[in-house]
Amino acid sequence: MPHITLEYTQNLAPELDAGEVLMSLNRALAGSGQFQEPDIKSRALVLDRFLVGTAPEGRAFAHVKLALLSGRSAAVKRELSEALLTALSRACPPRAGLDVQLSVEVVDLDRDAYAKESRGAGS
Amino acid sequence: MPHITLEYTQNLAPELDAGEVLMSLNRALAGSGQFQEPDIKSRALVLDRFLVGTAPEGRAFAHVKLALLSGRSAAVKRELSEALLTALSRACPPRAGLDVQLSVEVVDLDRDAYAKESRGAGS
Amino acid sequence: MPHITLEYTQNLAPELDAGEVLMSLNRALAGSGQFQEPDIKSRALVLDRFLVGTAPEGRAFAHVKLALLSGRSAAVKRELSEALLTALSRACPPRAGLDVQLSVEVVDLDRDAYAKESRGAGS
Repeated sequence: MPHITLEYTQNLAPELDAGEVLMSLNRALAGSGQFQEPDIKSRALVLDRFLVGTAPEGRAFAHVKLALLSGRSAAVKRELSEALLTALSRACPPRAGLDVQLSVEVVDLDRDAYAKESRGAGS
Repeated sequence: MPHITLEYTQNLAPELDAGEVLMSLNRALAGSGQFQEPDIKSRALVLDRFLVGTAPEGRAFAHVKLALLSGRSAAVKRELSEALLTALSRACPPRAGLDVQLSVEVVDLDRDAYAKESRGAGS
Repeated sequence: MPHITLEYTQNLAPELDAGEVLMSLNRALAGSGQFQEPDIKSRALVLDRFLVGTAPEGRAFAHVKLALLSGRSAAVKRELSEALLTALSRACPPRAGLDVQLSVEVVDLDRDAYAKESRGAGS
């Protein structure tokens, strides 16, 4: 916890550097003061099969899901999604000729049912 | 919003045409009258590592997740899932020799924490 | 229902055998007595673009999401997540030099909006 999943349509690559976007997102979360830095676990999925509406071309999207343990206030979740959207927007280069939608959702993880285990590098 | 994620096991390919299924799903949503056509953002993931139960072979599945902003009634969500299942079923060709499970889930997105930005093709 | 999604970072491969982990997870669920064996639908996604915190290297994670129809008690969900974490931990070989985080989340599927269809191998 927290988990970030970045999805982006293939027509945003190669201009979009997934590693750079993930770093921007993780820094935004680390800077929020809500999490321990090593706990932030992020992944990016490039979408090579996608469809926006019913138009075959000219559209793209990048979407971020933030999953965090339940219990944070609506205000904190709103601040986190805004911070992630800002980071995503800055890290996504402009693309002429494409309608691009950027979005961020926040999901609560059921705290009581969350189980975890950590193994240090020396273990 | 809304977001669709189609997952299907690799043994349904190549008969299953992901682009065709996505178009069927998006048309079903667009035809529901609940959404603006350009807002429907869909992706397909082919699953090359999967396991149904504990049987090594002979089973397949295709699963659709519809994520939409919270606030719609249970009846509307039920109608949407039924419409998506119908579209999925029609778009999935029959496969002799395989037990195939088709399913649709509907997830509410936390409306207060959802953030988005649109960039037009000319911007 | 239920659905399992296993995600693991690429630096855990090739020691981590996704097929073996899925079998362990599915057996754990089948052994819980909560599900019919053929209903357990699992997939594994290897994450080749990931970032843990803001450190470029030396960290890894494997994460399991269990999605099941709403209505089960918190105690049952806790037992299931513990059983899956145990199975995941046993199936993940030790990796010297890596900080590895293992985690399991449980998500309720909206029962009223869940739609499904089964096609037998002979149909």
